[in-house]
Amino acid sequence: MTTMTPAKAVVLVSGGLDSATTLAIARQAGYACYAISFDYGQRHRCELDAARTVVSQMGAIEHKFITMDLSSIGGSALTDTTLTVPTSPTTGIPITYVPARNTVFLAMALGWAEVLGAEAIFIGVNAVDYSGYPDCRPEFISAFERMANLATRAGVEGQPIHIHAPLIHLRKAEIILRGRNLGVDYSLTISCYKPDETGRACGVCDACRIRQAGFTAAQIADPTRYQPTSE
Amino acid sequence: MTTMTPAKAVVLVSGGLDSATTLAIARQAGYACYAISFDYGQRHRCELDAARTVVSQMGAIEHKFITMDLSSIGGSALTDTTLTVPTSPTTGIPITYVPARNTVFLAMALGWAEVLGAEAIFIGVNAVDYSGYPDCRPEFISAFERMANLATRAGVEGQPIHIHAPLIHLRKAEIILRGRNLGVDYSLTISCYKPDETGRACGVCDACRIRQAGFTAAQIADPTRYQPTSE
Repeated sequence: MTTMTPAKAVVLVSGGLDSATTLAIARQAGYACYAISFDYGQRHRCELDAARTVVSQMGAIEHKFITMDLSSIGGSALTDTTLTVPTSPTTGIPITYVPARNTVFLAMALGWAEVLGAEAIFIGVNAVDYSGYPDCRPEFISAFERMANLATRAGVEGQPIHIHAPLIHLRKAEIILRGRNLGVDYSLTISCYKPDETGRACGVCDACRIRQAGFTAAQIADPTRYQPTSE
Repeated sequence: MTTMTPAKAVVLVSGGLDSATTLAIARQAGYACYAISFDYGQRHRCELDAARTVVSQMGAIEHKFITMDLSSIGGSALTDTTLTVPTSPTTGIPITYVPARNTVFLAMALGWAEVLGAEAIFIGVNAVDYSGYPDCRPEFISAFERMANLATRAGVEGQPIHIHAPLIHLRKAEIILRGRNLGVDYSLTISCYKPDETGRACGVCDACRIRQAGFTAAQIADPTRYQPTSE
């Protein structure tokens, strides 16, 4: 008689709605989950507190925080305080896009996955709402997976790592319904690009507007705490 | 009459022999060079001082140091003080291999390249001497380049970034001869995996042995400062 050990997965958890749902999906799929979060000089640092709360409430074998200074590279309103976070829809690649962010995060997750002997990495990217972000597209995820299996000991030794992006083709309302069915408490999550110090959302940035519209379309009460000025 | 602006390149500089040679090659090719070095929790931190000296002596438009804690991921003798750096040849993927290191470094370089509008990234990987490192192989570099051009604004907008690995097929002696012809001062570089605090090399680790053999084969005097015990 053999004891089945669950396969390991590294799950990227930002503290937002999408990654919380992704963790729930990975857990339901039976993976032993190892959560990883990044302190990358983001303006909205209370999202790290949200990540900690989400993971401890939902459960993971381990939760690792990696510090890296993406802000020193610049080029994004999310890390550069001299740039303004837009409060109305824009076209093209948004200024909130952080250059190569998902590439860097997946690379770090890959390193940990290799050390753990994990067979999967889960990332909550979405190509519907964030259509302007090049590194949220399916063709990016596929190319990363292919590269990852040439970059690593596991790949070379014939134990490929799979990059799972289970939300990539879902609309926000579909993500919310999926997560609700899996018991995700969205009141713990922060999506806002410029929350206040207590984690209350602005209600007007891209991320807030997409999230609000998602709850409306899903016909689920929005549990988000908003700043007074945005009602 | 138009003024030609030189194309920009991000060059990964570790403080070692290979990356110093790579910087010299990028400069000779006419690129405006932006050097990037990583403080990743490596044991041999004097290599960062070497990187600073190499870049300031050879010249670059800017030199950026990025801090990231790869040691928290573990799995390598280069970042984990509980593992021993081997002093004799080993087979397979060496314990000095840092999981996904080149993937992480190239990802960060990619982010900076995107912000700068650089058209090239230079990395001094070598598939001859470091044949056991999966992320030093040509197929890895090609797969990273393909992924990079799907990950980035530049790639999406039709301005591809090229990943140059000019040393990848060269033997150590060929690298040394190439660098000497370009005026590289190898006495400034550190290759050793376990130098002492003053930057003197051990003379017995993999990196030292490969380097020594390279100078011997190139019939050039080895300018490396060695620790007394290794003569």
